[in-house]
Amino acid sequence: MVDHITVKLGERSYPLHFGHDLRTHVRAQVEQATAAGRKLVVVTDRNLVETQGDALAAMVGATPRIVLEPGEKTKSLTDLGRVLDFMAEQRLDRTSLLVVAGGGVIGDLGGFAAASYLRGIGFWQIPTTLLAMVDSSVGGKTGINLKAGKNLVGAFHQPTAVFIATELLSTLPAREFAAGMAEVVKYGLLGDPGLFGELEQGRLSVSSPRLAAVIRRCCEAKARVVEADEFERAKVGGRALLNLGHTFGHAIEQVTGYGTYLHGEAVAIGLVAAARLSQRLGMITATEVDRVVRVVGAHDLPVALRSPLAWPELLAAMSRDKKVRAGRLRFVVLKSLGEAITLDEVDLAPVEAAFRSVGAV
Amino acid sequence: MVDHITVKLGERSYPLHFGHDLRTHVRAQVEQATAAGRKLVVVTDRNLVETQGDALAAMVGATPRIVLEPGEKTKSLTDLGRVLDFMAEQRLDRTSLLVVAGGGVIGDLGGFAAASYLRGIGFWQIPTTLLAMVDSSVGGKTGINLKAGKNLVGAFHQPTAVFIATELLSTLPAREFAAGMAEVVKYGLLGDPGLFGELEQGRLSVSSPRLAAVIRRCCEAKARVVEADEFERAKVGGRALLNLGHTFGHAIEQVTGYGTYLHGEAVAIGLVAAARLSQRLGMITATEVDRVVRVVGAHDLPVALRSPLAWPELLAAMSRDKKVRAGRLRFVVLKSLGEAITLDEVDLAPVEAAFRSVGAV
Repeated sequence: MVDHITVKLGERSYPLHFGHDLRTHVRAQVEQATAAGRKLVVVTDRNLVETQGDALAAMVGATPRIVLEPGEKTKSLTDLGRVLDFMAEQRLDRTSLLVVAGGGVIGDLGGFAAASYLRGIGFWQIPTTLLAMVDSSVGGKTGINLKAGKNLVGAFHQPTAVFIATELLSTLPAREFAAGMAEVVKYGLLGDPGLFGELEQGRLSVSSPRLAAVIRRCCEAKARVVEADEFERAKVGGRALLNLGHTFGHAIEQVTGYGTYLHGEAVAIGLVAAARLSQRLGMITATEVDRVVRVVGAHDLPVALRSPLAWPELLAAMSRDKKVRAGRLRFVVLKSLGEAITLDEVDLAPVEAAFRSVGAV
Repeated sequence: MVDHITVKLGERSYPLHFGHDLRTHVRAQVEQATAAGRKLVVVTDRNLVETQGDALAAMVGATPRIVLEPGEKTKSLTDLGRVLDFMAEQRLDRTSLLVVAGGGVIGDLGGFAAASYLRGIGFWQIPTTLLAMVDSSVGGKTGINLKAGKNLVGAFHQPTAVFIATELLSTLPAREFAAGMAEVVKYGLLGDPGLFGELEQGRLSVSSPRLAAVIRRCCEAKARVVEADEFERAKVGGRALLNLGHTFGHAIEQVTGYGTYLHGEAVAIGLVAAARLSQRLGMITATEVDRVVRVVGAHDLPVALRSPLAWPELLAAMSRDKKVRAGRLRFVVLKSLGEAITLDEVDLAPVEAAFRSVGAV
């Protein structure tokens, strides 16, 4: 069964298709586009080809493809160049479509390739990790990393369609699944107390009957936030709320050089740090912080750094973060477990204390 | 005296400032931005530093700068990466400004760097060539080249302001000045019979008292076209009209590997070819073609290829051009000397004949 919702952004609106198995559904759309004279090209990674090659082939058939190495290092200007050169070799024109099948790395890189090739062509997202399904495949943020930091280069470019086929999660390593759960916990904390309550009742796994409904609930939450603030221009709240836990998390990833922690693992520690920061600012109680720590831990995610990191380095990394506006630190904090707000000009002392509480030294 | 017009694009509107010497004017704006807590960084090229170092210093003072090599080869993913890394090292944030001072290469590359850094920050254009003043600095088309072709990667990203200081043309080599005149001739041909008539009356030079008014007239024409069709989506006419002569010109540049012909020189030959194509399609007369050839030649521009190029190679290059839609060749042709239209699905025979008339074999 295929179900869908629409992300409503005027002429940039697009559907999110949900189902366990979307093979026939995607294949029909590929054939329809081809019949209309549109060229398609697939960008994916080696992991997906090895673990979900049959599903991919069923969806896109013999569509020309470029296969990249998995991992954060691929989110580089070099690999962007490879994809762009491939698109040019395949002579894609403005009517063509890039089919982006993979996790967050391929999704962000492929989306940016589509955004910049001929100053923007259409693209489909076929997310293959939990994290990409609930977060990075929806909303049009695309980009790559620089040496100086993550996601420093990119574009806002909404996909033409997103296909969320939960069967693709069957081969996802447990660690990757857990990492995706960090973003699910985030949606509960930032705006959906009911979802957070559900997560408190027991660990969600790849075989949970509840999983499909939870993914859809996260996508609906994300769609609502993106509809209200597509280009992250809101002075208060808005799209920045989706960064709950991320200012801490990005600093961890940057100081450890990407790869020591999965993005979701860094975000998990970041969620705990954000809860502690909120407590220090008098917004939530120690008991509520404990509930956050329990839910994060119950989903096989780290609640503190595995090895200590130096606070000065973490601070320097946060200062380079995009969310710094005109030199001031900006954080998303919790008013309650289910309501987040943005705070500008946060003092360094409680931020440092929160980071030390998760293992910074 | 500083004069200005506005490119009206709603929240993306911006001023074009005109003057002989804009040193004090730009310096005041730099100081105003700095006082407001905004960081600035300059991207420019070695030629400009060597020939207009005093003017540049007067305008931007000690603003940190990255100096690239002049020439089309700089419009690459590699140099884009250099600029982006520099912006990150200088810790530019979303409120920062990139000051882009140079010709078309630096303008297109710098504009794309501003478009993609943090998914888009503001930038100023300070064009230093005639071509950049009348064409590439206005309208928000930014981008770089791939091996497969010119301007295949980029973004629509309007500048925050454009400063057109004609004193900067004083050190422009004569060949570069002539190349810029190709775009001036283009504006006359595509929509301003009065301008074309003026160009027929005598060669414009860097010291012509009429030059400043002609530059402003071209910018006004470009602003009107861009206002009507910012993202080049018009099915008929619109921004595509600005490509008069360019489908031919880009093919020439691509087959000769960029550098043999300056962009404006290739466009000049392209204008002659477009006139011949229009004649073959029965739209203008042989006498009108002769007038185009005379005006192009009078401005020290080539009216034919200096050495023959192979038609099959030129055709292959045109087929890779962005202006190809779903496999069909699209051309801008002349209804009269002062009115251009777009034509879809042009037959190959008259295109080949037009290209042979300027020296293809």
